[in-house]
Amino acid sequence: MRHDQRAADQLRCFKITRGYTQSAPGSVLIQAGRTTVLCTASVDESLPPWLAGQERGWVTAEYNMLPGSTQPRKRRERGGKVDGRTTEIQRLIGRSLRAVVDMQKLGPRQITVDCDVLEADGGTRTTSITGGFIALVDAIRSIEGLAANPLRDSVAAISVGIVDDVPVLDLDYQEDFAASVDMNVVVTGAGQYVEIQGTGEEATFSEDQLAALLILARAGTNQLRDIQCEALASDWPC
Amino acid sequence: MRHDQRAADQLRCFKITRGYTQSAPGSVLIQAGRTTVLCTASVDESLPPWLAGQERGWVTAEYNMLPGSTQPRKRRERGGKVDGRTTEIQRLIGRSLRAVVDMQKLGPRQITVDCDVLEADGGTRTTSITGGFIALVDAIRSIEGLAANPLRDSVAAISVGIVDDVPVLDLDYQEDFAASVDMNVVVTGAGQYVEIQGTGEEATFSEDQLAALLILARAGTNQLRDIQCEALASDWPC
Amino acid sequence: MRHDQRAADQLRCFKITRGYTQSAPGSVLIQAGRTTVLCTASVDESLPPWLAGQERGWVTAEYNMLPGSTQPRKRRERGGKVDGRTTEIQRLIGRSLRAVVDMQKLGPRQITVDCDVLEADGGTRTTSITGGFIALVDAIRSIEGLAANPLRDSVAAISVGIVDDVPVLDLDYQEDFAASVDMNVVVTGAGQYVEIQGTGEEATFSEDQLAALLILARAGTNQLRDIQCEALASDWPC
Amino acid sequence: MRHDQRAADQLRCFKITRGYTQSAPGSVLIQAGRTTVLCTASVDESLPPWLAGQERGWVTAEYNMLPGSTQPRKRRERGGKVDGRTTEIQRLIGRSLRAVVDMQKLGPRQITVDCDVLEADGGTRTTSITGGFIALVDAIRSIEGLAANPLRDSVAAISVGIVDDVPVLDLDYQEDFAASVDMNVVVTGAGQYVEIQGTGEEATFSEDQLAALLILARAGTNQLRDIQCEALASDWPC
Amino acid sequence: MRHDQRAADQLRCFKITRGYTQSAPGSVLIQAGRTTVLCTASVDESLPPWLAGQERGWVTAEYNMLPGSTQPRKRRERGGKVDGRTTEIQRLIGRSLRAVVDMQKLGPRQITVDCDVLEADGGTRTTSITGGFIALVDAIRSIEGLAANPLRDSVAAISVGIVDDVPVLDLDYQEDFAASVDMNVVVTGAGQYVEIQGTGEEATFSEDQLAALLILARAGTNQLRDIQCEALASDWPC
Amino acid sequence: MRHDQRAADQLRCFKITRGYTQSAPGSVLIQAGRTTVLCTASVDESLPPWLAGQERGWVTAEYNMLPGSTQPRKRRERGGKVDGRTTEIQRLIGRSLRAVVDMQKLGPRQITVDCDVLEADGGTRTTSITGGFIALVDAIRSIEGLAANPLRDSVAAISVGIVDDVPVLDLDYQEDFAASVDMNVVVTGAGQYVEIQGTGEEATFSEDQLAALLILARAGTNQLRDIQCEALASDWPC
Repeated sequence: MRHDQRAADQLRCFKITRGYTQSAPGSVLIQAGRTTVLCTASVDESLPPWLAGQERGWVTAEYNMLPGSTQPRKRRERGGKVDGRTTEIQRLIGRSLRAVVDMQKLGPRQITVDCDVLEADGGTRTTSITGGFIALVDAIRSIEGLAANPLRDSVAAISVGIVDDVPVLDLDYQEDFAASVDMNVVVTGAGQYVEIQGTGEEATFSEDQLAALLILARAGTNQLRDIQCEALASDWPC
Repeated sequence: MRHDQRAADQLRCFKITRGYTQSAPGSVLIQAGRTTVLCTASVDESLPPWLAGQERGWVTAEYNMLPGSTQPRKRRERGGKVDGRTTEIQRLIGRSLRAVVDMQKLGPRQITVDCDVLEADGGTRTTSITGGFIALVDAIRSIEGLAANPLRDSVAAISVGIVDDVPVLDLDYQEDFAASVDMNVVVTGAGQYVEIQGTGEEATFSEDQLAALLILARAGTNQLRDIQCEALASDWPC
Repeated sequence: MRHDQRAADQLRCFKITRGYTQSAPGSVLIQAGRTTVLCTASVDESLPPWLAGQERGWVTAEYNMLPGSTQPRKRRERGGKVDGRTTEIQRLIGRSLRAVVDMQKLGPRQITVDCDVLEADGGTRTTSITGGFIALVDAIRSIEGLAANPLRDSVAAISVGIVDDVPVLDLDYQEDFAASVDMNVVVTGAGQYVEIQGTGEEATFSEDQLAALLILARAGTNQLRDIQCEALASDWPC
Repeated sequence: MRHDQRAADQLRCFKITRGYTQSAPGSVLIQAGRTTVLCTASVDESLPPWLAGQERGWVTAEYNMLPGSTQPRKRRERGGKVDGRTTEIQRLIGRSLRAVVDMQKLGPRQITVDCDVLEADGGTRTTSITGGFIALVDAIRSIEGLAANPLRDSVAAISVGIVDDVPVLDLDYQEDFAASVDMNVVVTGAGQYVEIQGTGEEATFSEDQLAALLILARAGTNQLRDIQCEALASDWPC
Repeated sequence: MRHDQRAADQLRCFKITRGYTQSAPGSVLIQAGRTTVLCTASVDESLPPWLAGQERGWVTAEYNMLPGSTQPRKRRERGGKVDGRTTEIQRLIGRSLRAVVDMQKLGPRQITVDCDVLEADGGTRTTSITGGFIALVDAIRSIEGLAANPLRDSVAAISVGIVDDVPVLDLDYQEDFAASVDMNVVVTGAGQYVEIQGTGEEATFSEDQLAALLILARAGTNQLRDIQCEALASDWPC
Repeated sequence: MRHDQRAADQLRCFKITRGYTQSAPGSVLIQAGRTTVLCTASVDESLPPWLAGQERGWVTAEYNMLPGSTQPRKRRERGGKVDGRTTEIQRLIGRSLRAVVDMQKLGPRQITVDCDVLEADGGTRTTSITGGFIALVDAIRSIEGLAANPLRDSVAAISVGIVDDVPVLDLDYQEDFAASVDMNVVVTGAGQYVEIQGTGEEATFSEDQLAALLILARAGTNQLRDIQCEALASDWPC
């Protein structure tokens, strides 16, 4: 039994609010238990310099924890040196979202998905991917004159890990802290892997443990796909 | 008549939500029309180096606009160079809050009030002060063993300006953009000035105009004091 | 009686030297008591990127205290992080000078007014504005082929404050340190306000005190306008 | 058939030179085909600030590509902003090495493993781990007075990927560029996983493909363990 | 004949003003023709971290050109990246001054000599050394309770170069720009070399040319020693 | 007798390996005793911004010590602030190489010579110049369609110094540390000086000592020219 009474394969309560602010075309508040992330997606009709002159578009992401999202307070990353963890996470979010976008169909524009963590209780990177996808859908819907839908599929992510030798799904902060192995898995609506990142910091894991974690992760992302479909309703074909 | 039908001396709709997140002892979502700021206050039981060894405390503030809070998207201030406007604003918020705190009574600890703008529609700095005060109250209430209340008074702030030659209260972004004179006024619950910052960028103003603006500002901060009192209810003596 | 025998409404001794160096078209050494600022104004016949292609010009300012201008020695701001105080001051100087310049008449060029403090004894920001205006006049006079004078008016600035409960004019460092309220006021030759910045750090002020401070400030800027006129002689119509 | 005639499950030629320089206690030149990395391990008898006062040690890694290691020349990372890719790689190397070190037995000292790429032809991060382990062994051997061996196991890493729909082992740059899926796998001498990082940039992969890649990776790291054992000879119990 | 009518071995007019400001114990304005440098020397009764706990002192220097000291305006070095030329110059000034100071006799304190160029017309680094020495003398004189004079000798510096194939002394900017070889020579009052830096950018020089340049430089520094002695009068034993 | 049995005028053993890596057109490993530097030269067919549109080329250099090249480990210069010593050295290398290149004949392209120190035992900057010249030759040889050879001469460099009052050639680290005077001399194959940098940190030197050092340096660079000729064989006319 987990400390919050969940079963090993049970997700926390997920809640998705679209249109949370009006200042960005995609604006989604996603909550997974106490973890709360504001995902906004902005469209820039110009391309980054390294894509200048091309017909294809780009999707990128930025991730940030607000100082008050955790205790003790997290210092702002303003010193010109972005934290290695932050860099890794925002690169992961960007790659995950790009995996389901057809850049030719998006056309010569850039979408930036900003994931700002308002409250952090574990799973902020995977929650950012799951919520960021919804913001991306809304931002793309706001673009006028697209000839075809650039979205090839949906994408969602979840964490799994080994806590007290038991593989569990969707770790909160307390479990994450105690886990010997931590894995983040990104899966499309069609069930294809986009990314697997499994790490045993000062620990290792066997082939059997890997297999058990992947089964949990696929079950979890399946459920998240359904939650995304429900939030998008008629705006997404499920 | 103003573009949103308000009278010249009418505030926008203000809404204050205490305990918006659980991750910081003070956590307040404040909305002024569409302007939305998350103010969290964190307590650090150690002092900044320049106060080391003293018996008094310190209150400081940081201000930040989330990238999606405005369009076009605002670039994150991660390049090691904090924007001059940001620096000015967070110094103003810090000074304003310190004006009502007795640092001896606070004791050797530091409170940081983070004001993160989720949606920006004018007045973000004054809204940060008004909401930051509530977060500060809640953070101070969370400290155990304080001998006396370090708060001497409440504090609130509002913007006034001259738009189309008419002095108006509580400018939104559209009015702010059109204003020839812009003034931010910070006033305590007892009606004392803490700060006046009046600026005519590429414009100037007369003594009569100054007088009219100050009258509007004092009426506005009076109302904000009442709104703060209501939000704090029994936690603040009004 | 003030510590240096001045009356409450008395300025320090002001001295303005035009053409202090030959390396910049405007080069003014201004002294207010011991406070000494070298103001140089340079003309750049290209515009900053954000104004590229426009027909109007721009005036900007930078402020800096030399390390030996104060004791203990002030560390140089070379670490990539310009001090918040410096940023605020140079923004104030820039806005104040721009308030009296017609950017259309200046044409597509930028003037930078550099205010380097050689000795600091209070009032460095207001002295920079008062001296910077003279440097600006000389820089504009050096531009060949201007169809019309871009200067609409003169501008000068002074500090006022409350020291031992008495409102006083033109505070030196010792008074500034002891003041409960500090206010900088920028006024044009015609008597219009450009900027008011009044601050009670860990203190507040009443409506009556505000009124007394403004009267002092206007009398002070009146005298500075006359001192500027004398320095400019036939180069300025007074 | 691969472009360099290798079989799908064939490693490139690996060569390990211990004691390449005398300036660091661990100094290993490792070559994998044309990929060449100099791994040096230095021992610092003091701990980083966040471990101060503890009895346990720490192992960290830094990764860097020399400018001439690739064409066009790679700009040096001196601008105060370390590239996201670099950050990710050096964090991966550090975690991988730490997984086989008993920090209590290492005692209160820090070992830094520097991996400088002299020539880059794909697989630089995995080659850094495989060579870095040898440098780590030599650095630990240089410490006098250790009560017990802090090394619990050996560790090696290899890349696998899907190129033209075929899973292949140990990709060089040309294959890496063409791969739709890229995976780095870190495995201990005993066959336990330390880390799995699989990424489909603008692509995805199925469960079957994942299984095939893992089989290749385990065969490859098995061979690398033997190569490491041979290089270490009597200095390591295989 | 040189463009300003000087003989090949003739110095420009040198003028030294001691006590130029009162804010630093050593404060010297030195002019060499139009080149003008403000040298201030400040005493810090604590040592830099790397000397902590020692009985000896330290002398360091910083060099800076004010933006208006040259045209076009020189950008301030605030971006976190100090210009290579600036770094070289301030290291040269520091080494030159340290060569005549007995650090044991100075005791556990640090003197910083700031050389801020108000107007630049060639020879700013050598003028900084010559003037900086005077500021250093005055700063050392301000220290109370020194058991013995830490100054072993005086030090002065001059530039020489080859312009139109002729070796000349004390180049101004126009000559410096045209020179094929540029050499800075630092010599003590007793005639010992402290530093020689000779450079042929896109040019080279012969043994005979080197000999001719050194003769000019020694004659020049001899004269500067006399000028320094005169400025210091009874405060220095000549 | 020197600590390593060399005569006062004897070079260490020099070894030059061309084509050390294949990733850059010029790639030279140069060893002087234990000092080991990898010099790679890369050709960029575009010019730096400040030369844009010109017909002439540019040669620049960067210098870096790998962390493990010395003990204790040298921290990487990633903090946005390149060390003053590094800046000085890479500027010296660049000037030295440019002195023998005809930029018109090189044409509108830039060559960057990277000197990465793998092991540091004194004389790294002069060894970088001597080895960098060979890498430069190979990079120029790789350019197709040059009308004429841009190289006017060869260039080599050596250090000399005064150790225990004796002038010696080619100091290793132990001698460099003990030297009272340190001088780096850069000389062309034809025997012309390119650069002389002599420094007495906390010491001075006489005219006679200077003369003795220059004789040693010229004998040393003569020998290095022959070593360079041998390494270049038929690729350089000696």
